[in-house]
Amino acid sequence: MENLNGEGAAPLVGVIGGMGPYAGVEFLRKILANTVAIRDQDHISCMLISCPSLIPDRSEFLLGTSADEENPAKGMFLCAQMLYKAGIRYVSVACNTAHSIRIFTPFLNMVKESLPNLTVVNMLETCAAWVKTDCRYRRLGLLATLGTYKSRVYHEYFTEEDGFTLIDPEERGCTNIHEAIYSEDFGIKPHPKPIKRRAKNALIYEAYRLADRGAEAVLIGCTELPLALDQEDIDIPLLDPAIIAARALIYCVAPEKLTPFAL
Amino acid sequence: MENLNGEGAAPLVGVIGGMGPYAGVEFLRKILANTVAIRDQDHISCMLISCPSLIPDRSEFLLGTSADEENPAKGMFLCAQMLYKAGIRYVSVACNTAHSIRIFTPFLNMVKESLPNLTVVNMLETCAAWVKTDCRYRRLGLLATLGTYKSRVYHEYFTEEDGFTLIDPEERGCTNIHEAIYSEDFGIKPHPKPIKRRAKNALIYEAYRLADRGAEAVLIGCTELPLALDQEDIDIPLLDPAIIAARALIYCVAPEKLTPFAL
Repeated sequence: MENLNGEGAAPLVGVIGGMGPYAGVEFLRKILANTVAIRDQDHISCMLISCPSLIPDRSEFLLGTSADEENPAKGMFLCAQMLYKAGIRYVSVACNTAHSIRIFTPFLNMVKESLPNLTVVNMLETCAAWVKTDCRYRRLGLLATLGTYKSRVYHEYFTEEDGFTLIDPEERGCTNIHEAIYSEDFGIKPHPKPIKRRAKNALIYEAYRLADRGAEAVLIGCTELPLALDQEDIDIPLLDPAIIAARALIYCVAPEKLTPFAL
Repeated sequence: MENLNGEGAAPLVGVIGGMGPYAGVEFLRKILANTVAIRDQDHISCMLISCPSLIPDRSEFLLGTSADEENPAKGMFLCAQMLYKAGIRYVSVACNTAHSIRIFTPFLNMVKESLPNLTVVNMLETCAAWVKTDCRYRRLGLLATLGTYKSRVYHEYFTEEDGFTLIDPEERGCTNIHEAIYSEDFGIKPHPKPIKRRAKNALIYEAYRLADRGAEAVLIGCTELPLALDQEDIDIPLLDPAIIAARALIYCVAPEKLTPFAL
């Protein structure tokens, strides 16, 4: 079978989605939205893999509440392998909670060992670097899953050393946000379209609470959240790491095609 | 490298997108929206490949207005090959115009010859079969690109023999719809989000014109159109072949997960 790599048109950029599936699709849309394009052919080539049943819930794993103890890293790595087979050389993982050290480090180690030519664009690292150099906000509120809060993964990247102060919601708020994502009755995962008003309002409320407690901007620390919360909903600046990672992937293969971007 | 096929969780279902890129992403969303799922893990595994620069414009090719004469079938086949390498065994092409005989037949021949274990779910064939058996509408208006109108591909599947009458817009209407898709100023392809009012209104107007001329329902004969035209916009029943094809792909691997659907 013909090998297309190096010909420039075959996809080198891939997204590991499925965490959740709608968030993966949304990540791909962010790649498109951040590309300067008039015609179809102007867009970069890319692939999305969505294998949700291969990857246990990241938050449950971190909180120790999952039925099985399997590390989601294993399924993420299998997805990386499949993308690699198809020719992908730059990949990002469309899930914030998956970037927690207990998941992302074993994932990176497996990639390093078995797929040394695959570059993983770390969404949180990329985002922190961007905010640090291109953005004036330093006191950042965080909307995320309980797994992300508990793992304190954002603190690994948005460090005090770099001048950042991260503001988590109070305990009740963390649960509210987690419910807005997971609740069977009104959560984003089971009800992605249309989004339930209760989920959206909970996020708006918690974002304003964070602002009241000093946040200059709010990090959208879960790829599911932009399905329900848009900059148009709220007058607090929203920082979406998925947008920054999508832009970083475009930058890897076609930096001249990046749309202007500022916040 | 480990082969995951046969283990049930690796993706067997793929979508050839990029025609245009947003329509490909939207097709994947239709797979998700037609799956019964409460948790991430309930969704089926799937992949999307989007290589727009490998595939010349289908409409230009059919109309003979493209700079190069390359058949889009070749790029579609390269995408099929890449998906196949990653383990995909059922694939659909997220573009109506690409289903025109002059493109789709050479594509199918290449697949048959080189990838005999890959099943191509033909979006138009599947849609016609569904409308014939599960739907009472027989006089169908068609919203599509000039390439699709000219190739008369819908007439191949929605035959008079099966009781169908297809209603094309008048010449001016065909151009209006084509412009709503392609115009650099207001078309869906260059302006997918937000959609320009002029594109949306042109589609609404032409759909009502088709109904005035006897259409009981309107076929959304271009995967780009659902980005701008929703059933909520209009009280004429809309038939979207991409939804039927998305459902057919789910049916191939997990028929028990199909959501109820009727029109």
